[in-house]
Amino acid sequence: MVVYDDCLMGQLIVQKYGGSSVADPEKIKSVARRVAEGAAQGHRMVIVVSAMGKTTDSLVALAQAITPTPDPREMDMVLASGEQITIGLLAMALASLGHPACSFTGPQVGMITDGVHTQARIRRITAERIQTALEAGKVVVVAGFQGMTESGDITTLGRGGSDLTGVALAAALKADVCEIFTDVDGVYTADPNVVPDARKLARVSYDEMLEMAALGAKVLQARSVEFAKKFSVPVHVRSTFKPDPGTMVTREDRSMEDVVVTGVTHDRGQAKLSILRVPDRPGIASQVFGGLAKQNIVVDMIVQNIGRDGSTDISFTLPRADRQRAESALATVAKEVGASGVAADDRVAKVSIVGVGMRSHSGVAARMFETLSKENINIQMISTSEIAVSCVIEDKYAELAVRALHDAFELAKEREA
Amino acid sequence: MVVYDDCLMGQLIVQKYGGSSVADPEKIKSVARRVAEGAAQGHRMVIVVSAMGKTTDSLVALAQAITPTPDPREMDMVLASGEQITIGLLAMALASLGHPACSFTGPQVGMITDGVHTQARIRRITAERIQTALEAGKVVVVAGFQGMTESGDITTLGRGGSDLTGVALAAALKADVCEIFTDVDGVYTADPNVVPDARKLARVSYDEMLEMAALGAKVLQARSVEFAKKFSVPVHVRSTFKPDPGTMVTREDRSMEDVVVTGVTHDRGQAKLSILRVPDRPGIASQVFGGLAKQNIVVDMIVQNIGRDGSTDISFTLPRADRQRAESALATVAKEVGASGVAADDRVAKVSIVGVGMRSHSGVAARMFETLSKENINIQMISTSEIAVSCVIEDKYAELAVRALHDAFELAKEREA
Repeated sequence: MVVYDDCLMGQLIVQKYGGSSVADPEKIKSVARRVAEGAAQGHRMVIVVSAMGKTTDSLVALAQAITPTPDPREMDMVLASGEQITIGLLAMALASLGHPACSFTGPQVGMITDGVHTQARIRRITAERIQTALEAGKVVVVAGFQGMTESGDITTLGRGGSDLTGVALAAALKADVCEIFTDVDGVYTADPNVVPDARKLARVSYDEMLEMAALGAKVLQARSVEFAKKFSVPVHVRSTFKPDPGTMVTREDRSMEDVVVTGVTHDRGQAKLSILRVPDRPGIASQVFGGLAKQNIVVDMIVQNIGRDGSTDISFTLPRADRQRAESALATVAKEVGASGVAADDRVAKVSIVGVGMRSHSGVAARMFETLSKENINIQMISTSEIAVSCVIEDKYAELAVRALHDAFELAKEREA
Repeated sequence: MVVYDDCLMGQLIVQKYGGSSVADPEKIKSVARRVAEGAAQGHRMVIVVSAMGKTTDSLVALAQAITPTPDPREMDMVLASGEQITIGLLAMALASLGHPACSFTGPQVGMITDGVHTQARIRRITAERIQTALEAGKVVVVAGFQGMTESGDITTLGRGGSDLTGVALAAALKADVCEIFTDVDGVYTADPNVVPDARKLARVSYDEMLEMAALGAKVLQARSVEFAKKFSVPVHVRSTFKPDPGTMVTREDRSMEDVVVTGVTHDRGQAKLSILRVPDRPGIASQVFGGLAKQNIVVDMIVQNIGRDGSTDISFTLPRADRQRAESALATVAKEVGASGVAADDRVAKVSIVGVGMRSHSGVAARMFETLSKENINIQMISTSEIAVSCVIEDKYAELAVRALHDAFELAKEREA
């Protein structure tokens, strides 16, 4: 039994359930029961669902069996079928529980996107049919991940796009909250698998969530957080399988600034590449990274130190899977720019601390460096943003570093936010 | 290599491929090659496909796992996903062969139906997007079996609905031909599994095809034939796996009347029920069959003989699967009308001869009865239409009867139609 606060009675709630929450008919029926509880409490409910379990992967495999380079428009046609199955099944499950429900595809609710197939961006949402169905007392079930161009072609929003559908619908409908149901029960001060006393955060700000998503926390897709921030949609990240409240992602308020560091994230899927003794003259960086961009290689952290003897070293991190491709592209670039060579390291991890309080507190980065130093962990690269500090370290120290930082910033301690 | 007649060059061709023709990626690629041949010859091609293999059955099973009585609107939402996968895959297969192609769902091509979910009827087709894509030189791939109500809800046309989509699009586009690709290579004078010298018919009339479809030939769905007749769409039934021409289903012409009997059909899936010694007074038949209709039991042949001693026997056939349900419904009715009892027989078959030539030839029925009599086959029920005669016989004689009739009417003999 999910009990919503009294003050939430009669709200408009958008809920999003991911693929693992609707992986089979039993799970869909269990989601239906959860939705029905909300509806029984008088809330107007709009439910966004993903394709069941590994359906999207199977559809991609089918297309790959046809051709290694599927036409993107047709890929979207195939992919969009996955969510269409789930919405129909969930709506019939709700109806069989006695809750009138009505499912809609992305195109049917006027989820208008640009024409960049498989990676479309939302332009606007009419959502008229949703309003009508809500007014008729129905639970509305909407296919996540999909939309339609102005000219009526089916598009998809890219991996994790169902989160975006949920947040975008919540914005369009001016919903009171967008609840993202997932297999974790909220956003933690650190990965609980690494830090046993990691604490579930009651609230984080959009900016913190954005940094955390970018820095390795996998709970929410970064684009959805951006969208939520832009339209001030309160997002509630919570567990599909437990009734407890999760983490509210909301606008920043004064009280949040009292907390210097909100969480520690780490990303072990990285590699580090360096281009050595590059001539230290204008235009070099653009030449180096232009060369990589041409190969569609997306780099993450970039560090360039001051030159010595008229030359400098440039280092950057990137997803480990792209390392080999990047290394050979970089070797070509190295020759062109007259660098002495290329060095690669697969065994690095990025550890970051995130918190809006950093803006108003000094000495945070220094404390991070000191903590790592105490553990004899060498820092290979440093990068900072307004509300985050990241260090690249040797991979084998990643867990130790996260635990040490979690302790140093006293993140296990409960506090009023 | 499929060679179209010279006179067909540059035609507008609608092709429909069923589920077994597109059951896996290899089969889809093979269909794509066949379509590409037609396109390479300068034809404008519109391809209608069903869901892959047993996809529709799996989707029905998924829905049944949610609830034994799925909401029909949501059932259609789920079912329509099947064809959507196939159209995307076929279009990308065509594109990978270098033939620009474009897939559309039923709703996207403006296939407007009534709102009877899972059994919708087509109201009109706008087909504007098809015209535009054809003009742009594309092969157009359309999802069979599905449409949309005026208010934008997804509907399906019932089992076999993809044939109907093909014929309806051919009518709307004024196509030169609608080719129905299937796992048999045409319409035969009798089931070749029963009659070894059964002959493939080069042509049959719409009416003959209709009777044959109703009387047990499974090659074309009866509603599609009605539609083809209404809009004079030439339908070509042919094999997915062989290049040879199949059977043209066309408007009747003078020459067809020279052939008295075109084919012999049989249906072994029937049962016979009789209600015995019913009082012979007006309104009895309506009372009997009204009672059955209330139970949604569809009866096939009905025979009532003249009364004797103020009472009569009424017999009818129906699908064997409905026998038990019908028998208990009939027992109730028997009491109400004061009949003496009910008799049931599962072991019956219906054997029919079909031919437009019957209209202008006499003695056809007599020859049928004589043929069966010569084989010592007792006729239990007789029913006639303008172009067909059907006899219900003991099931074990069905194949013998079909072979004897095929011989008696010399159907193995090649002739000019």
